[in-house]
Amino acid sequence: MSLNSIKTIHKCFNSYQSLNGFTKNLNKYSSILNHRKMSDNVNKHYELNSRYAKVGDKNVWVEFTALARDYNAVNLGQGFPDYDSVKYLNEKALEVSKESNNLMHQYTRSPGHLRLANAIAKCYGSFLNREINPQNEVLVTVGAYGSLFNALSSFVSDGDEVIIIEPFYDCYAPMSAIAGAKCVFVPLRPKTENEVTTSADWVWDEKELESAFSSKTKLIVVNTPNNPLGKIYSREELQKIADLCIKHNTLCISDEVYEHITYDRAHTRIATLPGMWERTITVGSAGKAFSSTGAKLGWTIGPKELIRLCQIVHNNSIYCCPTFIQEVIARCFELEIARLGHDESYFKSISAELKPKRDRLAKLLIDAGLKPVIPEGGYFMLADISTIAKNFKTDETDFKDSKFVKYLIKEKGLATIPNTAFYSDEHKHVGENFIRFCFFKNETTLEKAAEILKNLHVD
Amino acid sequence: MSLNSIKTIHKCFNSYQSLNGFTKNLNKYSSILNHRKMSDNVNKHYELNSRYAKVGDKNVWVEFTALARDYNAVNLGQGFPDYDSVKYLNEKALEVSKESNNLMHQYTRSPGHLRLANAIAKCYGSFLNREINPQNEVLVTVGAYGSLFNALSSFVSDGDEVIIIEPFYDCYAPMSAIAGAKCVFVPLRPKTENEVTTSADWVWDEKELESAFSSKTKLIVVNTPNNPLGKIYSREELQKIADLCIKHNTLCISDEVYEHITYDRAHTRIATLPGMWERTITVGSAGKAFSSTGAKLGWTIGPKELIRLCQIVHNNSIYCCPTFIQEVIARCFELEIARLGHDESYFKSISAELKPKRDRLAKLLIDAGLKPVIPEGGYFMLADISTIAKNFKTDETDFKDSKFVKYLIKEKGLATIPNTAFYSDEHKHVGENFIRFCFFKNETTLEKAAEILKNLHVD
Repeated sequence: MSLNSIKTIHKCFNSYQSLNGFTKNLNKYSSILNHRKMSDNVNKHYELNSRYAKVGDKNVWVEFTALARDYNAVNLGQGFPDYDSVKYLNEKALEVSKESNNLMHQYTRSPGHLRLANAIAKCYGSFLNREINPQNEVLVTVGAYGSLFNALSSFVSDGDEVIIIEPFYDCYAPMSAIAGAKCVFVPLRPKTENEVTTSADWVWDEKELESAFSSKTKLIVVNTPNNPLGKIYSREELQKIADLCIKHNTLCISDEVYEHITYDRAHTRIATLPGMWERTITVGSAGKAFSSTGAKLGWTIGPKELIRLCQIVHNNSIYCCPTFIQEVIARCFELEIARLGHDESYFKSISAELKPKRDRLAKLLIDAGLKPVIPEGGYFMLADISTIAKNFKTDETDFKDSKFVKYLIKEKGLATIPNTAFYSDEHKHVGENFIRFCFFKNETTLEKAAEILKNLHVD
Repeated sequence: MSLNSIKTIHKCFNSYQSLNGFTKNLNKYSSILNHRKMSDNVNKHYELNSRYAKVGDKNVWVEFTALARDYNAVNLGQGFPDYDSVKYLNEKALEVSKESNNLMHQYTRSPGHLRLANAIAKCYGSFLNREINPQNEVLVTVGAYGSLFNALSSFVSDGDEVIIIEPFYDCYAPMSAIAGAKCVFVPLRPKTENEVTTSADWVWDEKELESAFSSKTKLIVVNTPNNPLGKIYSREELQKIADLCIKHNTLCISDEVYEHITYDRAHTRIATLPGMWERTITVGSAGKAFSSTGAKLGWTIGPKELIRLCQIVHNNSIYCCPTFIQEVIARCFELEIARLGHDESYFKSISAELKPKRDRLAKLLIDAGLKPVIPEGGYFMLADISTIAKNFKTDETDFKDSKFVKYLIKEKGLATIPNTAFYSDEHKHVGENFIRFCFFKNETTLEKAAEILKNLHVD
């Protein structure tokens, strides 16, 4: 290896380390080595835009989904139902196909197919207890993921600070960094060390939260119910965030994709707190509301001035979402609007459907020597592995939870997700004793998982 | 208005004008005035990320689609078929719905649903005359638009130059600028002034093209068949670009979405020229290949090192595309792969279907006193309005073609798109005598347009 190429690698590492450092770009080194094999002439093409180079190409979903597939593992990793929880969704797709209307296969309105925008406005008008204008207070996006990308890309500028509460859904940090933000992380920590804890036991240090806010803070990302923890923020907790947002005049992105999946506490919407509507965008998802992650359809709801900014990114990156699936989801919404608040509403029945699965998994985990954190909402559960994974240690190659997850996949045929994926580099040690399970699975999958957990002998 | 607010507006305009200036942010002034009505406290939220602020929120499609709708005009503006040109596409949607497979409504592989990636690799393997690896040489995106956003966002860094040939599909310039590029524009100019010209008569000045390349050039965007002109670049023209790309060691983004719609010249793929595969990504679209713009599904094909860069942007902005529509398009591809090269192939029959429409529109335009530029490919046609729009002049409020298009919509009930939308500010005068028609319309629409054109008395 020449001196020059070593210098290049050092330069690359230094520039990387000087940045936010919330994600370790483990692939960078090997990819640099690969590039060395090509001619220098071609090399210069493979330089990634520096904003994206900060976050690199390591992606927990790509990595662990591939590993689970390679080992044909029982997959409680990636979060999606492996059975048709909403039977009518496919029926609506069939209905739209049968009508054979060419317009369902052509461009629709850029900020959202009108029938869907109208349905979202009506439904969330009820949830947020205010009139929502479908023309300019709703933006339909490529999943909640797309909503978050639009909002973070447009709201944040170089030097702004974004506050993220840990553990967090892993895209918040790279998306913020790409837009130019410095991320300020506030970890939730378990306040008890009982055998069985719940997500309500995970709380912030109030002083730590307060001191995260400064004149540089542009926004805070709130995720309730939270993924991976399942925490539903109490009204008091959300009021605390609202007070800080108002005091420091910051925006709030409220990711509420698991809004309908609640067990032990009602879901409060931060946009309904006094003074918050005008500074909040609420993010929702058809993938979660109708258990159809493949729809890749989400929405952003908020004051028109903020929606307009999101729309500029939307118009310059994808322009509009697929028409057919928007029509299908519009019809699903219309069905639900007609029975909102009734027991047969899917927005109610989904929690009743998932609660026994949650309780069953919790018992299985306890019996297997893992300590579950019982989630108040959502369809994920963290489990403390410290008792059974004593022989797994974090070192310079990998984190403890990540090593244990790989072991479970390869040796036991059970796939989960390491919790450190949901932490910044500075706080990964807070999360390294946990792994995340998804329990939105059919009986066969849960039975297979139960068999593996019952016979879990960790070497 | 206070002195401070006037200063703010001036500052904003100056910073805007010092930038690339390819799109006039006409809304900026009014939006600043609107914001003045709100409290200063809230104001600071509505600052757009500076990279997006460069391009602003003016969008020709949003503006003229809304105007056409408001005046209930016969729409030859936005480019999509208003009838089901591909009958089997909806049948495939019906087929997938009937199978009622829950996996069609859940997440699929991030870089592309495997069945679709396989079909694309097979099909383009044949087109490009090389084996394409579906695992790492294909990326499925939210339309060709998404492919272009991924590629420009990842390849381009601050200070790079991007060469764009005019007239150009309007997203190339803002997407390049958002990534940090300076755009260098090379206009095609008509070389004859005959009554009827074709898109082949529009050529670049070879010296101008050569001098656009420099050590700062990162890439050139080529669009063949071109939108809005319909030009299909000859092999010699593409070889000239290839020679310059190789000489200056630059990348090439080849937007070939109209690849199958050719009338008077065969389509050449620049990635097949010697030395070009490794520096080219080819962009295609289900919207154009299967006449289903609402599918919003596209693909990027190229060497794995370039696809990997595109995928980093993809993973951080939308993560994956909707599953259902990918399955539908995969089945459409499979049907076409089985009959590739045969007359019944849609990739052949679409040109035969559209040629009579093209010829009919050309005749209608000539009879109406407009001089058409006969396209060699695609489904758009430019028409020279200079003879009949003598009373329309470009001034500080608007361009001549834009004024004439608004007049046609409001007074005559016929919607088209002004050609200056496809030019940089510095060359809008080259394009201001033309408007763009889409002729991929059903008989009723074309008949209505014919009636309006036959009775066209321009004041």
